[in-house]
Amino acid sequence: MARWEPGARERLVLAAVDLFTEQGYDATTVAQIAEQAGVTRSTFFRYFPDKRDLLVAGQEALSRLLAEGITEAPPGATPLEAVAAGLERAASTMGPMNRELGPRLKAAVAASAELQERDALKSVGLAAAMTSALVARGVPDPIAHLAAELGVLAFKRAYAEWSDADRDTAGEFAPYVLAALDELRAASASLG
Amino acid sequence: MARWEPGARERLVLAAVDLFTEQGYDATTVAQIAEQAGVTRSTFFRYFPDKRDLLVAGQEALSRLLAEGITEAPPGATPLEAVAAGLERAASTMGPMNRELGPRLKAAVAASAELQERDALKSVGLAAAMTSALVARGVPDPIAHLAAELGVLAFKRAYAEWSDADRDTAGEFAPYVLAALDELRAASASLG
Repeated sequence: MARWEPGARERLVLAAVDLFTEQGYDATTVAQIAEQAGVTRSTFFRYFPDKRDLLVAGQEALSRLLAEGITEAPPGATPLEAVAAGLERAASTMGPMNRELGPRLKAAVAASAELQERDALKSVGLAAAMTSALVARGVPDPIAHLAAELGVLAFKRAYAEWSDADRDTAGEFAPYVLAALDELRAASASLG
Repeated sequence: MARWEPGARERLVLAAVDLFTEQGYDATTVAQIAEQAGVTRSTFFRYFPDKRDLLVAGQEALSRLLAEGITEAPPGATPLEAVAAGLERAASTMGPMNRELGPRLKAAVAASAELQERDALKSVGLAAAMTSALVARGVPDPIAHLAAELGVLAFKRAYAEWSDADRDTAGEFAPYVLAALDELRAASASLG
């Protein structure tokens, strides 16, 4: 079992994104990331199976939180209310580091086809986690799938906005993601 | 300029998916695909930049057709009516080969993380193409994005159903995709 090292994971993520942005994703090695984070290569591999997975480090935790929030929403909650509960649960773990990583992650992903693919698969995974949690609540399939997709869209749109906001006034992520979900709910009434 | 060779492209796609299914994606080489399709390696590279892109061979054509259908929908069409027009335009090019490839593609993608990522990025690309075409019609951003996502979901759900349908009675793709979009439109009214 790996010994708990506070902050090593976060240091690795920051170091990696800095290096990806400075010198490109392909040119960056695991050894460089570990060195910049002040840890050994074997510590790197305790946290991440490979360089690419590092960029979606939080995906499993995020999926779990989204699903938990949906599962524990009140029995009478509508599908979108359950999704909102999932988003709020996930938002509670998004701190200043997540916010400040946003623009750098965006730049790194924009510059690499491989990271774009990994990022796209991340969205599919988040949608699948939310769909399953909704179906387990008894939401029928097409509605569950659609509600989950709205949740993913809300998360992505809110994350972009929050990351771009002024550091001193950005505040918490939760209001952004709930507002984005509301906006999409309103948009769905205008689809025709 | 490459000389036009009728059928070479389709033969390459069929050969590749057969080989991926028989022996796995990673173990399959471009040389094997070309040999099984009865063409040279250089012919392969006239059609596809690499092995992976072969699996999403139709993506650019599909994006173009979806966007054209949306662009040419009547001026008074709602966002979802425009998406339906895009889906119908795209459906017109889906023939028996597309249908029969469905289950084999699904198996090949399910077995390969790399193909899952490529497939996920394909969905993002189709959504982006539809979003742009809707925005160009004057549909405001969140509505355009949402309508495009519904279009992608409808396409994926309909393609799975059509591919699974009995060969003799499956018929055309268009009714499947329009029904799937209608189902999602109805689902959006039940989101809460």
